[in-house]
Amino acid sequence: MYTVYGDMLSGNCYKIKLLMCFLDIGHRWVHVDILSGATHTDEFRKMNPNARIPVIVLPDGRHLWESNAILNYLAQGSAWLPEAAYDRARVLQWQFFEQYSHEPYVATARYISKYLGLPPEREAEYHAKQQGGHKALAVMEQHLAEHAWFVGREPTIADISLYAYTHVAPEGGFSLDGYPAVRRWCADVETIPGYVKMDRANA
Amino acid sequence: MYTVYGDMLSGNCYKIKLLMCFLDIGHRWVHVDILSGATHTDEFRKMNPNARIPVIVLPDGRHLWESNAILNYLAQGSAWLPEAAYDRARVLQWQFFEQYSHEPYVATARYISKYLGLPPEREAEYHAKQQGGHKALAVMEQHLAEHAWFVGREPTIADISLYAYTHVAPEGGFSLDGYPAVRRWCADVETIPGYVKMDRANA
Repeated sequence: MYTVYGDMLSGNCYKIKLLMCFLDIGHRWVHVDILSGATHTDEFRKMNPNARIPVIVLPDGRHLWESNAILNYLAQGSAWLPEAAYDRARVLQWQFFEQYSHEPYVATARYISKYLGLPPEREAEYHAKQQGGHKALAVMEQHLAEHAWFVGREPTIADISLYAYTHVAPEGGFSLDGYPAVRRWCADVETIPGYVKMDRANA
Repeated sequence: MYTVYGDMLSGNCYKIKLLMCFLDIGHRWVHVDILSGATHTDEFRKMNPNARIPVIVLPDGRHLWESNAILNYLAQGSAWLPEAAYDRARVLQWQFFEQYSHEPYVATARYISKYLGLPPEREAEYHAKQQGGHKALAVMEQHLAEHAWFVGREPTIADISLYAYTHVAPEGGFSLDGYPAVRRWCADVETIPGYVKMDRANA
C-alpha cells in the first residue's frame, strides 16, 4: 500500500491523487497542513529534507518527493507514460515547463490569494505573478489549439501536471476566457474515467 | 548529428555540453545571445514556443527543450541514467528540486549579477534570492555529507543538473565556504574524464 502525504488543495499533491484514481492504485492519504508548519518538523524532514509536499511512501518503505518525479514513477508501464524515448522526453519537457514557467506564477498567485487571503504585504508579488502566468497559459493555448493533448494522441502525465493548477488558475486571478483551447482540454481531462475533483473531501 | 542552441555561460545549456562530452556525443553548438533577444524571434519560437535556451535538434530534425528533459533523453541506456525504476525517479526528484528550489535562486542571482551587472533596480531582487539559494545548498550539503553522489554509487545526470549552477554559485553571491561536502562533490565532478569548464571557448 502506498501512503501519500499531501493536501488535496495543493495542485502538486492533487496530481498524485488524479493519477492514482485514473490507474486505480490503492493508497492511504495523510493530510498535511502546510500553514501550521507540518512540513518543517524533524520527522517530516526525514522524509523530504526540502520540507515540501507531496511525499509518497512506497509499499517497501522508501520515500520519493517532487510531484512530477512521483508521477513518472507511478505511471511507468501504463498508457500515461509513453514508451517511445522521444515521447517520454517530451512528457518531461512539459513537466519541467510546468514547474519552472507555470507553477511559480499560476500556483503562487493562487496560494497568496486562496491560502493567505491576499494580505497587503504580498499584493505587489501577487500582481507581479500575472504576466508570467499569462505567458505560460499562452504557450499552452498555442499547443492545444493544434493538439488534443500535450504529447501524442492520448492523455499522459504531462496533461495531469499541467491540468492541476491550470483548471484553478482563476483562483489566482487568471481568467481563462482568452484561452478556448485550454478550456476545451480541461473539459476533456474531466471526462476521463476515475476523475476526481480537487476537494479535500475526495482525499 | 545533434545541434544544440545555447550559451555555455548558462548553466542550463552547460549541462547539455557536459553530458555530451562525458558520453562523447558529436554535436554542433550554435551560440544564442539571450540579451539581444535571439530567443524571441519567430524562427526561434518555432523550435521552442517558451523562448528559452537550450534547445536541441535531433539528427532526424525533431526538437526538444528544457535542459533536464534533454539530459534524460541523451543519457538513456548509459550509466548516467540508472535502469532501476526507483533510482530513475530519484534522478528526476533531484532534477525537479534543481529547477524549482535551486535554479530560481542561485542561477537568477548570478544572472542579475554576472549578466546584467547588478543594476540598482534589481538589487532588492538579488538580495531576496540569497535565502532561498542557501536553503537549497543546505539540502544538498546534508545529502552529500552522507553520499558520494545524488543517486547511487556513480554519478548520474542528477549530479550534472545540480553541478551546473552550484559550482558558479559564488558568482551569484553564494559563498560555498560553509558547504564542505558540496565543495568535495564539485571537485569529484571535475575529475570525470571528458569534463570541460564553463567557458564559451569550450563550446
